[in-house]
Amino acid sequence: MSIFAIDTQKTVTYCKGRRNFISQEDFLAIEEPLEMKISYRGKKKSLSLTMRTPGHDQDLVVGYLLAEGIISSYDDIDWNEYGVVSEEGKDAHICVYLTKEPINLDTLKRSSYMSSSCGVCGKTSIESLDVLQNLKCEKELEEKIRNDFLPSNFFFSLPSILRKNQDIFKKTGGLHGAMLVDFEGNMVALREDVGRHNAVDKLFGHCLLKRVNPKAGVLLLSGRISFELIQKASKSGVRYVAGIGAPSSFAVSLAKKNKMTLVGFLKEESFNCYAGNERILYE
Amino acid sequence: MSIFAIDTQKTVTYCKGRRNFISQEDFLAIEEPLEMKISYRGKKKSLSLTMRTPGHDQDLVVGYLLAEGIISSYDDIDWNEYGVVSEEGKDAHICVYLTKEPINLDTLKRSSYMSSSCGVCGKTSIESLDVLQNLKCEKELEEKIRNDFLPSNFFFSLPSILRKNQDIFKKTGGLHGAMLVDFEGNMVALREDVGRHNAVDKLFGHCLLKRVNPKAGVLLLSGRISFELIQKASKSGVRYVAGIGAPSSFAVSLAKKNKMTLVGFLKEESFNCYAGNERILYE
Repeated sequence: MSIFAIDTQKTVTYCKGRRNFISQEDFLAIEEPLEMKISYRGKKKSLSLTMRTPGHDQDLVVGYLLAEGIISSYDDIDWNEYGVVSEEGKDAHICVYLTKEPINLDTLKRSSYMSSSCGVCGKTSIESLDVLQNLKCEKELEEKIRNDFLPSNFFFSLPSILRKNQDIFKKTGGLHGAMLVDFEGNMVALREDVGRHNAVDKLFGHCLLKRVNPKAGVLLLSGRISFELIQKASKSGVRYVAGIGAPSSFAVSLAKKNKMTLVGFLKEESFNCYAGNERILYE
Repeated sequence: MSIFAIDTQKTVTYCKGRRNFISQEDFLAIEEPLEMKISYRGKKKSLSLTMRTPGHDQDLVVGYLLAEGIISSYDDIDWNEYGVVSEEGKDAHICVYLTKEPINLDTLKRSSYMSSSCGVCGKTSIESLDVLQNLKCEKELEEKIRNDFLPSNFFFSLPSILRKNQDIFKKTGGLHGAMLVDFEGNMVALREDVGRHNAVDKLFGHCLLKRVNPKAGVLLLSGRISFELIQKASKSGVRYVAGIGAPSSFAVSLAKKNKMTLVGFLKEESFNCYAGNERILYE
């Protein structure tokens, strides 16, 4: 993970009963603005300003474009041009060069700023929230997934995999994590960010850039499961979402509608299933 | 709290070692869209679409307008007209009637959608994030606050006050809480929402509508402390912010810049102070 993600500073700790406070170096998760741009045929457009934890910025912008339906595959990025170009550091800018004109850009009426925890800024109506478009998936894999079940024991093993791998969280306690785990229980990738939506965008952006199909995996979330996270998962083709925290009512509705399996309050000893229980095999 | 905030549904619980899963009624925190509008001299404008937990919608929209600098006092709302008018329920709309034309509306280039956890959509540049404008405060109170210290024991008592009062969280485990506590340790108000920014907007909106000056209190947050939450607190005049979770680096910078006291990792036995330690009195 990027060295830009963690800041150190003098912090003062108070403890009950102690006669004085303790002054020590502490680690903080960095939150900084990133301006995301797209370019098509020489025309650049500023898309949004996001508060994010630096590191994996290319993944973030690609995942964001994917979630917003501006790109849908690796080939939508113009690698003959500059591809994805970033400047690291403060007040960073990042630009994605596109092979085709984004169709929905004007209708989106996008804002130029979104918060670290906001991944769906710019929608013009309640209806548009619901438009889902999945990634292309090879027929064979499609078939495999359709007939797939996951044993309940698979889920019990997930929290420890997440805990083991959340590097920045371990140091700062201040980051959301999003992890893709394959059906054999191996970690495919993990991304962290101060914003939970950013962590998910980074993860699926990484998958797109590395041509990994997230359909053959489980999205594991470190926190609560909001509607937008389910929407992003659905756009990326993921069918299984599991979170350490609680899902919202709207997240459950969307998961049901999209025939996804949604697991919440995931612990090593128990979990709740809110949607798609028929694809969990009791073991 | 509104009955709209909690949904019940059949949930399936898996426990390690048990021979079958348990099916039971479970509570979910509701997440639904709300469209926020403003009206001035007969002209209505849709401002944003937010995902929120229903209940205290009037507080939410007023707090949002306050945080965005569109209003700054009770008198900016046209009570001779309709004031703040809401329709509860699904696909809800809420409108605030203004006594003066919002000056910064066009420059904001606001998006028409923001997520449940997004409170600062629509900024046009990184610079604009930093523009802070505090509420008017009577001279006397100002003086009192300037000379105020809080004893460290005051902070140790906060987590239990929050836990006792978070009604919906108790049932669903899925909500962020924002609470205002006065310097005597009494709860002034508490608001909950699936989005942490919404919870804070609801709280400060409530204060504005009830003409409570939040300057004489401590903002207590149930989770992590991001930059926007510090910005919202600062706009409302709050000088003390304490959170159960970790602050981000940018949150700490902003708190320092605005001479606020920022406490994180708040527990009943210990806490960290990240800014304004000179206003905590060791006891």
